[in-house]
Amino acid sequence: MYEMTIQLQTDSKVRLYEQIYRHIKQEIIEGKLLAGERLPSTRSLAEYLQVARSTVDEAYGQLCDEGYIEACPYRGYFVCAVEELLQVEGTYSGNVPKGSSQLTDALKEQQTTADGGFEAHTSKRAWQVDFSPYAIDMSGFPMSVWKKMSRKVLTEAGVDLFAKGDAKGDMSLRRSISRYIHSARGVECTPDQIIVGAGNEYLLMLLEKILGGKLRIAMENPTYERSYRIFHSFDYDVVTVPMDEDGMIVEELKKTKADVAYVMPSHQFPTGTVMPIGRRMELLKWANGAESRYLIEDDYDSEFRHRGKPIPALQASDKRGKVIYIGTFSKAIAPAIRVSFMVLPPALLEKYQADCGFYSCTVSRIDQCILDGFISEGYFERHLNKMRKIYKEKHDLLMECLKPLRGAFEISGENAGLHLLLTSKSDKSERWLLETAASVGVKVYGLSDSIVDAGTEPPCGTVLLGFGGLDESAIRRGVELLQKAWLK
Amino acid sequence: MYEMTIQLQTDSKVRLYEQIYRHIKQEIIEGKLLAGERLPSTRSLAEYLQVARSTVDEAYGQLCDEGYIEACPYRGYFVCAVEELLQVEGTYSGNVPKGSSQLTDALKEQQTTADGGFEAHTSKRAWQVDFSPYAIDMSGFPMSVWKKMSRKVLTEAGVDLFAKGDAKGDMSLRRSISRYIHSARGVECTPDQIIVGAGNEYLLMLLEKILGGKLRIAMENPTYERSYRIFHSFDYDVVTVPMDEDGMIVEELKKTKADVAYVMPSHQFPTGTVMPIGRRMELLKWANGAESRYLIEDDYDSEFRHRGKPIPALQASDKRGKVIYIGTFSKAIAPAIRVSFMVLPPALLEKYQADCGFYSCTVSRIDQCILDGFISEGYFERHLNKMRKIYKEKHDLLMECLKPLRGAFEISGENAGLHLLLTSKSDKSERWLLETAASVGVKVYGLSDSIVDAGTEPPCGTVLLGFGGLDESAIRRGVELLQKAWLK
Repeated sequence: MYEMTIQLQTDSKVRLYEQIYRHIKQEIIEGKLLAGERLPSTRSLAEYLQVARSTVDEAYGQLCDEGYIEACPYRGYFVCAVEELLQVEGTYSGNVPKGSSQLTDALKEQQTTADGGFEAHTSKRAWQVDFSPYAIDMSGFPMSVWKKMSRKVLTEAGVDLFAKGDAKGDMSLRRSISRYIHSARGVECTPDQIIVGAGNEYLLMLLEKILGGKLRIAMENPTYERSYRIFHSFDYDVVTVPMDEDGMIVEELKKTKADVAYVMPSHQFPTGTVMPIGRRMELLKWANGAESRYLIEDDYDSEFRHRGKPIPALQASDKRGKVIYIGTFSKAIAPAIRVSFMVLPPALLEKYQADCGFYSCTVSRIDQCILDGFISEGYFERHLNKMRKIYKEKHDLLMECLKPLRGAFEISGENAGLHLLLTSKSDKSERWLLETAASVGVKVYGLSDSIVDAGTEPPCGTVLLGFGGLDESAIRRGVELLQKAWLK
Repeated sequence: MYEMTIQLQTDSKVRLYEQIYRHIKQEIIEGKLLAGERLPSTRSLAEYLQVARSTVDEAYGQLCDEGYIEACPYRGYFVCAVEELLQVEGTYSGNVPKGSSQLTDALKEQQTTADGGFEAHTSKRAWQVDFSPYAIDMSGFPMSVWKKMSRKVLTEAGVDLFAKGDAKGDMSLRRSISRYIHSARGVECTPDQIIVGAGNEYLLMLLEKILGGKLRIAMENPTYERSYRIFHSFDYDVVTVPMDEDGMIVEELKKTKADVAYVMPSHQFPTGTVMPIGRRMELLKWANGAESRYLIEDDYDSEFRHRGKPIPALQASDKRGKVIYIGTFSKAIAPAIRVSFMVLPPALLEKYQADCGFYSCTVSRIDQCILDGFISEGYFERHLNKMRKIYKEKHDLLMECLKPLRGAFEISGENAGLHLLLTSKSDKSERWLLETAASVGVKVYGLSDSIVDAGTEPPCGTVLLGFGGLDESAIRRGVELLQKAWLK
């Protein structure tokens, strides 16, 4: 049995659970804790460290979420096998916990969610309740602050703000973004590596030009259908790779002979899978296997997570410049502000400068300034905290309301994001679930919408329930109606 | 000799020169005036119609500019051969002159210019004077009106303005744009055919997806280098086609087996060539020759013309849906507002809806509303008139200042846009012109920058002088210095 040598600092700003989490992670990374080793039980460690058992639970939970350890029922917690572990030292272990800028503490509380061109759906048509997984809570939009910031920018704007700006986006905004993604997501980059653009779709188009040539791109299946359509509209050979509970299966990826893999490691859409560190390392190892291979990390949804601290980006574990990180403000602020960004690894940055530097920035400078002010003056942090709380309340309410359905349905993907999945434990088909829900005026979304490869048999009886755009009464009413439809 | 049967209406709002111009154009289109026929001399027609000779001069000048007639020194004016003339009836003849919306009269006075992602250059570095052909006059930017409009939009904005909008752009803005391009450019389209995007580069990327496949694209040579680089970054086979004084030589285009031809008929960059109606018809005939052929009309520069009324867009003559029209507000308003638009012919609109309708609009809705207000409340019209006057004054001043250089240089491309070309009448090379200008602190631009095909021998001794970004004293000083450098 592993002996814990941690010295907890009760006067530190770093919370106790976080100190335990960091310590164990570090021990695993340094090889002091080996794969297969059993950790002390939460009860015994809590006694030993003289802390509440819930504190140790929280630390273990986070380590489980990130794939460092796993829980075996009735046997305890064991260290996972993590491939190429020494490579991540200093990045994965160092940067994320040390990320101690102003934003970190606020974001530490945060949980993760999703975008990439998501719509602000509200219940339209004849639906009494629309559980759209794409909807966000627009009533939380910081209208007055945004207007205030807009007025301020306009008042101070000189004529230069209407002249052509930097092709990558204004340096000041790129600095704000790099600070934010470093502290909140562990992303390692200079502002120079960031390219600001009007939406993920545009950035993917630009990336197509940077990468050049006719590539074979691998996607998880199921995946985010919009991205699938985008890659299809490119001159790309799109292949799909099956997933297991850890995400894209790397052995299957290898068989596809793909050049590039598109993944959502922090919160896969639609399954909600969080890719554990072991699988991340496998993916990076795959990418390291050839110079032309890259991983596109769509971190569409990193801001809202309902349990534990945010899981760092895959880019944070990338030591060899293989990850292209794409983030957006569409989900966290509002779809119509149309600002996304892409972090290029050094080799692609060079290609960009050489071949694509003449593409003008697609976001107006006024809009860039407003967003920059919003981030740098601390409004974004406050807004995120507020939204996290709002979404967590909606999430918890939905989970509570779903209790009567738990006998008949398995819930998954519920730890992060703005939707969860219900899978029928009996033989109810997806179609039956959609149709009976529709018959009581409720719109739910079939998992098969996200199954992009026609060859794959759609798994039956799984639906997505989004809660981002619904208020309390709509959630209650919606689930009541579903109960009526499904449990009759 | 052709007998003129025109009935001038002195009480009409339509100016006399315009009535004469319309009448003769109509006669040519209807075949009453045949190719090769001689028109009455300006003096005799003026006497016959009892108008000032300058009125007839103006009408003939416009007809010459558009390629309906040509002037033969000492012999008079003759009707040109115009291919497929009957096809344009009703479009070319009908719509443009009849374009009588509110904007028309204002724009009638207008002259044309250039953009497509042009920069607002100012004299930087050690240059005393920088004759950049890409610079615009940012001091003319309607700052206070723009801010006022922005504040108004912000004040009235509801939360829906931050939700996701129409993928093509807001309907209201597309209506304003369609009215504007119809009245000012004769473009025939419904708002449904318009797609708003953040800059020409983005729209060309989107067009690549709509057209699909690996195409061969033909460009004029010399051409706008940025567009050349864009097409090169696509998976396109880019071929160049030589120009004569009417523009792209269609016989040469045919030899290239191109699918698509990219042209700037209203004011070619960099040569300033205005494509006459005959050549336009030839191009359209080429496009009509195969279902997959299209013409991309980059009307980057349609707002500023220093002589005669604006020349209608090529799209206005297109009866078979072969022209993709691209326009921008970067040059007419300001580069950083980042709004361009594309008019798709019906067949491509269908392809767009089927394959690319999921691409979100890249312009924020707030920015769309501001521009829409700016156009629909008449500010754009006023701004254009103001800028036209400013640029015409700069143009006229530059022409005046250049008088001492006329012995040694030929001036061309001076009727429209924000630059003109000087070609050495002696054996001075382009390089010598650039270097001697640089030695007195003046930056001029070599024509060879725009010669994109490495195989083409750069014609020696031609430089571009842009005046958009220079004030009166800079123009005077710049030409004085050039005189010193070049005529010593």
